[in-house]
Amino acid sequence: MGPHPAVADVRRAVREVLADVGKGALVLAACSGGADSLALAAALAFVAPRAGLRAGLLTVDHQLQPGSAERARTVADIGARRLDLSPAEVLTVTVGTEGGPEAAAREARYAALAQAAERLQAEAVLLGHTRDDQAETVLLGLARGSGLRSLSGMAARSGRYRRPFLNLPRATTVRACEAMGLDPWDDPHNEDPRYTRVRVRRRVLPVLEAELGPGVAEALARTAGMAREDADALDGWAEMAYQNCALSDIPGSVTLAVPELEKLPGAVRRRVLRRAAIAAGAPSGGLSATHVLAVDRLVTSWHGQKAVDLPGGLSAVRRYGTLILAISPIA
Amino acid sequence: MGPHPAVADVRRAVREVLADVGKGALVLAACSGGADSLALAAALAFVAPRAGLRAGLLTVDHQLQPGSAERARTVADIGARRLDLSPAEVLTVTVGTEGGPEAAAREARYAALAQAAERLQAEAVLLGHTRDDQAETVLLGLARGSGLRSLSGMAARSGRYRRPFLNLPRATTVRACEAMGLDPWDDPHNEDPRYTRVRVRRRVLPVLEAELGPGVAEALARTAGMAREDADALDGWAEMAYQNCALSDIPGSVTLAVPELEKLPGAVRRRVLRRAAIAAGAPSGGLSATHVLAVDRLVTSWHGQKAVDLPGGLSAVRRYGTLILAISPIA
Repeated sequence: MGPHPAVADVRRAVREVLADVGKGALVLAACSGGADSLALAAALAFVAPRAGLRAGLLTVDHQLQPGSAERARTVADIGARRLDLSPAEVLTVTVGTEGGPEAAAREARYAALAQAAERLQAEAVLLGHTRDDQAETVLLGLARGSGLRSLSGMAARSGRYRRPFLNLPRATTVRACEAMGLDPWDDPHNEDPRYTRVRVRRRVLPVLEAELGPGVAEALARTAGMAREDADALDGWAEMAYQNCALSDIPGSVTLAVPELEKLPGAVRRRVLRRAAIAAGAPSGGLSATHVLAVDRLVTSWHGQKAVDLPGGLSAVRRYGTLILAISPIA
Repeated sequence: MGPHPAVADVRRAVREVLADVGKGALVLAACSGGADSLALAAALAFVAPRAGLRAGLLTVDHQLQPGSAERARTVADIGARRLDLSPAEVLTVTVGTEGGPEAAAREARYAALAQAAERLQAEAVLLGHTRDDQAETVLLGLARGSGLRSLSGMAARSGRYRRPFLNLPRATTVRACEAMGLDPWDDPHNEDPRYTRVRVRRRVLPVLEAELGPGVAEALARTAGMAREDADALDGWAEMAYQNCALSDIPGSVTLAVPELEKLPGAVRRRVLRRAAIAAGAPSGGLSATHVLAVDRLVTSWHGQKAVDLPGGLSAVRRYGTLILAISPIA
C-alpha cells in the first residue's frame, strides 16, 4: 500500500522542486509548526535522503507571544527527533515596528533565515506557502490596485527560497499531517481579524468561492503565475528601452530622449519613466502611479507644463527634446 | 448657482469623451432607462448642442420580460420629449441562447446598436458603464483566471463605442438622476441572483469593501486600466515576434522557427504560440492556457515528445528546428 494521496502530493512537490539540487547539498525547511510547514518538513525529511541530499529545519521565535520560545523549541525537537532533520535550529529574532506588525515580523524572519542559510551553507530554503496563501496575496495586491507586479503574488523560486506547495491547496497539507500523525500548531495570529490577511482568508475568499464557484483560489493562483511572467517580460522590455532612451544617467540627474520615449507603448514608457525616477534618486516606495502619470504627460500631452515634483526632492522638466529628472534647485 | 456636483460630474465626463468629435456629427446614447444610462442620455442632451453636435438615443427591447416593449417606448419618449434627443429609437431584438442568457442578450444588443449606428451614420455611441461595472468585470475575469486580458475589463474606447463613466462611481449617476428629476427604471434582472454579475455586485463587492477598505472598486477599476495597457503592449510585442518566428503561415499549417522562439520571454512566447495556433485554424474560444503550455513544452523542455493535440483538429509537432501547427493527417 502506497502513502496517503495527500502525503504523496506533498512529497512529489518537494521532490520536483529539488530536482536540480546537487548531491550532498543541504536543504532547509522553514517551519512554524503550522500544517503547511510541518508537512513541508516531513516531506523534506522523506525525500532528501532518497535524493542524496542533507535536510535540516529552521524555526523562528518571533518573541511576540508568551511561550513562543517553548513553542519554537518544540518545533525544533519534532524536526530533530521525530523527523531526523539535522540541523534543527531555533532562530530567535526581535521584531521591530516599521511598516506595521505583519511586515516587521516578515522582515525579521527573512533576515534570520537568510543569515542561518548563509552560515550553514544551505543550497536552498523551502517555504510552505500554499495555493491558498498565493490566492490571498493576489487579493491583497488587487485591493491595492497598484498593477501587474502586485498581482503576481509570491515567486515559486527567488534566490535560495523555493515554494514547492504554491500549487497545492492548504487542505492537502492538513490531510498530509493527519495521515503522517503529525499534530500541527494553530497560530492564534492566523485567526486574529485585525490582520488584513486573516480577513481575506476567513471572510473574503469563502464569499468568493460561494458566489463565483469553488475554483476561485486556483484561478487567483493561476493569475499570479501569469501576471509574474507578464511583469517580467515588460520589465525586461522597459530595461532595454531605458538603456536606449537614457542620454545621461547619474544619481541626481537622468536625461531621457523624448523622441525615443514617444515610440514606446504606454505600458513600457511608464515603466521607463519609473525606472528613470528611481535612477535619479526617487525612493521607490514613495513613487506613485500618479507621479509617473504626471511625468508621462510631459511626453504625451506636452503644452508647456511646468516642472512635475517627485518624491526625494526631484523634479521632472521637459527641455526641447529631452526629459530631465533631477534634484530640484533650491528656490 | 451651478448644477449639482453629480450633474456637473456626468456632464464633464461626457464633454471630455467627445472633445475630438467634429462639429455637426451625430452622437448616440445607448439607454436602458437605468440610472447610469439615463444620466448619460441627459448629460449628452446638455453637452451636445453646446459642443455643436447632434445627439440621439437608442434603447433596446430585448423581448425577454413582459411589458418590455412598453418599457422601451417609455425610455424613447423620455429621450425625445423630455431630453429633446433626436432620433430616439427603440431597437427590437430577438435574443438567442448561445453562451448563456447574459452573453446572448449582450450579443443581440451590440449587433442592433452597431446596425443602427451605421444606418444613422453616427460618429460615436456612448455606453453608461460605471466604475462599479468595471470593478465587477475585473472580478469576473479574475474568477476565470485566464490572464491579463480578462483583468482588463471594458475599454474606455473601442471602435465607435465610448464609455465616459468608467471612472465614475454608480452612486454619482444615481444622484445625478435625482438632481435632474429623472426617474430611473430598476431592471429586475439587476437583482436576480441567478446572474453571476448580480452576485458579484450584491454579495462579493460589499464584502471586499467591508474587509479591505472602501477603495476596492476604485482599485479594481485602476487595475483594469493598467492591465489593458500591459496586455496591449505584450500583444504588440507578440505580433512582431510572430512575424519574426513564422517561416510559413497559411490556414491549416503554420511553421515557426524554434531558435527564434527560444529567444523570447515566456509571456511573449506563449502569446506567439497562441497566435500561431489561431492562425493555423484553432478556434480561439476552445484554446486553453493548458493547450498553449503543452505546445510551449515542445520548445522549452524538448525530449522527443509526441504531437500535442489542439482544438479544431490541429496538432503541434516539433521537427528539427521547427514547430509545425497543422491539421492532423487522418490516421
